[in-house]
Amino acid sequence: MQTDPIGIFDSGLGGLTVLRVLRELLPHENCIYFGDTAHLPYGNKSPETILRYSLESAHFLIQQQIKLLVIACHSACSAALESIRKDLDIPVIGIVEQGIDEITRRYSDGTIALLATRATVHSGLYERLLEQRNPALKLFSLACPLFVPLVEEGYEAHPISTQIIREHLQLLKPKAPKAALLGCTHFPLLRPLIQQELGPDIPLIDPASACAAQTKTTLIAHDLLNPQTSPGTTQFFVSSDPEKFRLHSKTFLGHPIEHVNEA
Amino acid sequence: MQTDPIGIFDSGLGGLTVLRVLRELLPHENCIYFGDTAHLPYGNKSPETILRYSLESAHFLIQQQIKLLVIACHSACSAALESIRKDLDIPVIGIVEQGIDEITRRYSDGTIALLATRATVHSGLYERLLEQRNPALKLFSLACPLFVPLVEEGYEAHPISTQIIREHLQLLKPKAPKAALLGCTHFPLLRPLIQQELGPDIPLIDPASACAAQTKTTLIAHDLLNPQTSPGTTQFFVSSDPEKFRLHSKTFLGHPIEHVNEA
Repeated sequence: MQTDPIGIFDSGLGGLTVLRVLRELLPHENCIYFGDTAHLPYGNKSPETILRYSLESAHFLIQQQIKLLVIACHSACSAALESIRKDLDIPVIGIVEQGIDEITRRYSDGTIALLATRATVHSGLYERLLEQRNPALKLFSLACPLFVPLVEEGYEAHPISTQIIREHLQLLKPKAPKAALLGCTHFPLLRPLIQQELGPDIPLIDPASACAAQTKTTLIAHDLLNPQTSPGTTQFFVSSDPEKFRLHSKTFLGHPIEHVNEA
Repeated sequence: MQTDPIGIFDSGLGGLTVLRVLRELLPHENCIYFGDTAHLPYGNKSPETILRYSLESAHFLIQQQIKLLVIACHSACSAALESIRKDLDIPVIGIVEQGIDEITRRYSDGTIALLATRATVHSGLYERLLEQRNPALKLFSLACPLFVPLVEEGYEAHPISTQIIREHLQLLKPKAPKAALLGCTHFPLLRPLIQQELGPDIPLIDPASACAAQTKTTLIAHDLLNPQTSPGTTQFFVSSDPEKFRLHSKTFLGHPIEHVNEA
């Protein structure tokens, strides 16, 4: 139904960077966000484990009567996008596909860097999708396993982060990438330091905007846009530690959250 | 019963550093190790959440008919030691108490540094126990939230770790500690870098040995020593990703594990 909410999930706080853009583009939609904080982080777990947790997260949102699901977590997409899409009767938007769409819209050949978690890199999903869409575009994938803890622990503007980012990204320079895709929802918070390290000539692509745009397009195509003229509401659920989530959410969302529910 | 196994749990791999010492001291005991890898890491979660997971971990081991429980995780001790002890009918050894015992045996006054997770530092358990035992000894507690991901992601001998350790430990020097307690089972793997940073005059105390010694003393006191003369066996259980645990266990345990069960 048109008045039903949009569901969005991530392993924790990172997906809030997607929710933020989504609410700017679709201010009249109601949203339900689920952060699977009990099982955070997904990005260093096995595909089987990520699949299990992602299905549980999706089913929690289905019980909340959502009309569309956004998988805001790249690691969850990598392990579970196909299974979730088969399993659900509603439209499912995966952030990984939107990242690929954004790359193919902007570039026709050359090398694009993918910065992501180990789980996302090892899945090879980005490579497979890009090969299908445009084999002239090559991906150089770089696992950055320390970037998530840096953000989760509040080091996003700390000199330590500069060091760690430099250490990781030095592998990119010989590949002369045309752009770098931020393949994890935590990484936009490290954007200034990553941009500083790569220099101004390599654009950083955050698939959040493409993800929000595709959500709007899909709602219109399925006649699911909410007709209400008042601002939409957002409810927040997590699988553990609601207060910790609430306290840290401002960094990701840009404003404080009043209440977070334990699912 | 004397032939029953010793149970030992941690949030993940870290407790293997304790198991290793325990098996050296008590080679004829059978052991069951449980790593709560589905909920790893504990050290940045809330006390309520750590309590819940710790009780679940303890109860899993109780179902395996253990005769004594070792809580090898400092964060779990900080949030759950009293509750678990009240809840169980068998002796419970907490690594935090053994750390305190080791400090009070070696020092009678001055400042001791505690390097630990946020959860352990915020709990204040070390301070309370030390105040009870010897108020002339002062603790300077330092949360080192990035040390666990460094070890979990395999950076324990990497220049990045040197940088991060230096950044954290510079706060210690003005306090002129007599020693530093490694208050997390991951930290012994960073021992060479921590020692290098603090210099040779500040001993690093790993409570694993005290924990093993107290286990032996307790088994003797309760007439629970295993009389078998053949080497004891060890079974490994985890709550998710047994293969990842198996692959990484060698770094912590000193030798490879053949099989890890999913609990």
